Amino acid sequence: MKNEYLLLTPGPLSTSETVRQAMLKDWCTWDDDYNKEIVEVIRAKLTKLATEHEGYTSVLMQGSGTASVEATIGSSIGPNDKLLVVDNGAYGARIAQIADYLNIATHVVAPGEVSQPSLDQVKTALEQEASITHVAIVHCETTTGMLNPIEAVATLAKEYDKTVILDAMSSFGGIPIDIGDLGIDFMISSANKCIQGVPGFGFVVAKQSELEKCKGRARSLSLDLYDQWHCMQANHGKWRFTSPTHTVRAFYQALIELEQEGGISARHQRYQTNQTTLVQGMRSLGFRTLLNDDLHSPIITSFYSPEHSDYQSKSSMTD
Amino acid sequence: MKNEYLLLTPGPLSTSETVRQAMLKDWCTWDDDYNKEIVEVIRAKLTKLATEHEGYTSVLMQGSGTASVEATIGSSIGPNDKLLVVDNGAYGARIAQIADYLNIATHVVAPGEVSQPSLDQVKTALEQEASITHVAIVHCETTTGMLNPIEAVATLAKEYDKTVILDAMSSFGGIPIDIGDLGIDFMISSANKCIQGVPGFGFVVAKQSELEKCKGRARSLSLDLYDQWHCMQANHGKWRFTSPTHTVRAFYQALIELEQEGGISARHQRYQTNQTTLVQGMRSLGFRTLLNDDLHSPIITSFYSPEHSDYQSKSSMTD
Ligand SMILES: Cc1ncc(COP(=O)(O)O)c(C=O)c1O
Ligand SMILES: Cc1ncc(COP(=O)(O)O)c(C=O)c1O
Repeated sequence: MKNEYLLLTPGPLSTSETVRQAMLKDWCTWDDDYNKEIVEVIRAKLTKLATEHEGYTSVLMQGSGTASVEATIGSSIGPNDKLLVVDNGAYGARIAQIADYLNIATHVVAPGEVSQPSLDQVKTALEQEASITHVAIVHCETTTGMLNPIEAVATLAKEYDKTVILDAMSSFGGIPIDIGDLGIDFMISSANKCIQGVPGFGFVVAKQSELEKCKGRARSLSLDLYDQWHCMQANHGKWRFTSPTHTVRAFYQALIELEQEGGISARHQRYQTNQTTLVQGMRSLGFRTLLNDDLHSPIITSFYSPEHSDYQSKSSMTD
Repeated sequence: MKNEYLLLTPGPLSTSETVRQAMLKDWCTWDDDYNKEIVEVIRAKLTKLATEHEGYTSVLMQGSGTASVEATIGSSIGPNDKLLVVDNGAYGARIAQIADYLNIATHVVAPGEVSQPSLDQVKTALEQEASITHVAIVHCETTTGMLNPIEAVATLAKEYDKTVILDAMSSFGGIPIDIGDLGIDFMISSANKCIQGVPGFGFVVAKQSELEKCKGRARSLSLDLYDQWHCMQANHGKWRFTSPTHTVRAFYQALIELEQEGGISARHQRYQTNQTTLVQGMRSLGFRTLLNDDLHSPIITSFYSPEHSDYQSKSSMTD
């Protein structure tokens, strides 16, 4: 069986033949050749891709990306905490919906689907509602392709000493960020987007000290992020429950192919070229884009300086 | 890549080469060739394998089998309901642990790891605690290989008009049962055990009228069994969130190979022969079995009569 056409969805996407061929072997979930040599290597690589800072760790979770988002929300937010959610599309809305299921108090900043959040609005909420403890935002809002001003929002959240949760499902691996630079405590993504693996699990890269605070907080056994991490950490890559071994092995191959391509910056370059080609071509056919050009992922139109306190986002300045 | 050895774990197990080769193609989660022609066919086949009765339906869930167990517990049991759990091993204990996470009241019948539950104890609990609404039991307690007397327990539960939940993770597809005959409302299993697919998702076959009562009850978005079912039902096999497409396609192939083998009864026969061969061989090497012979799965030592009210389980009679 082979691919007869390319998938143009943001993920699951068309994978390489070598990634798919990596699924042609069965693995025992108890053996070192799987846990130590595949799972642990993946965890280390993911942490490294997410940040150069020390003190970060990663955890893989069964289920789709949403399960990893819910595990993070449900494990990191305490019973008396409150979550500020930026919602400018389906995936921001989904975070608020998860909080609703879990009876977690929220403050939702919802600028609509074609705008970035107003930093003033975020700031006012943080200033006026001392009960807010966590801030969650989607990096690339996949529904529209909007790239959110996460640097500005994270910086603001950190000024007010909040825990920051980033849904980077459709950006991680395709857009360079350093979550340590940005002060992001939990970053969520999944196997089947920019890392170009096949679908079947999600993962969270987290500040270890923040993850450790999640102990005993989860509202669900399956979605207990701390428990899952603790098991992997203590047992050299052993998952608590049966893991999607073939998908995991394919992901390992996908990570190697990301390195062979030249890493995240090279992939970002390729995605940018693809995006520009697509937009130009469709414009010449008479189509129009929903969003203004400066909001389109994966193109970063903001001015980045390593000192994130100096960081200025062009798009947020136009708010 | 090929298998160099056989996995002797109960699952994930060694799959056929053709099952693994079914993963060599990518699928779009929005297209009919995946949703209608694979997912819907799987759902229909699973329902058929579980019962010949009308009024049953099935739903596939992302995550490992535990996620499907938790989805069932968390979606079917209301805030004022109470769950009786039979716990004679790790997987019975896990059901109780899930209920604990979800703040669901439980009555646990725990005869220890090498015994079947006392039907008298179950009966007394049902008689004395009117607040009990649901009964959960594991079919094959994989930790020891114990085959539980589900017919007797389900019959008893139905006499008291309780909802019955069966964890058939390591038996469904390998041991013939008809959940309609037994009055089982929710039966849970996963891709990587007796159906012999690769790991990555679980599923629930349910009495539709009982599943419909779950609407709005779930404690988790990702694990909302009703919502997942409703989406699949209304949209011809569309999952709510990204599904593990390759694993699902492999499972489809595994179901065909189950049919080619001659269905569940032929597979059961083969498993029985394997078990007998293994036990005899290991006994001749000086090993002893933990359980008495009449408790070993997959061998059914009970006397089955289609009219389940006449049903007598030999092992439960020895209680
Ligand atoms: C930004 C974002 N968040 C969350 C999700 C949900 O992930 P999944 O469909 O794997 O549950 C997606 C999926 O496309 C996404 O793009
Ligand atoms: C009876 C039973 N229940 C539950 C589970 C849990 O399934 P999973 O490991 O896929 O979460 C298993 C796994 O072996 C099992 O055998």
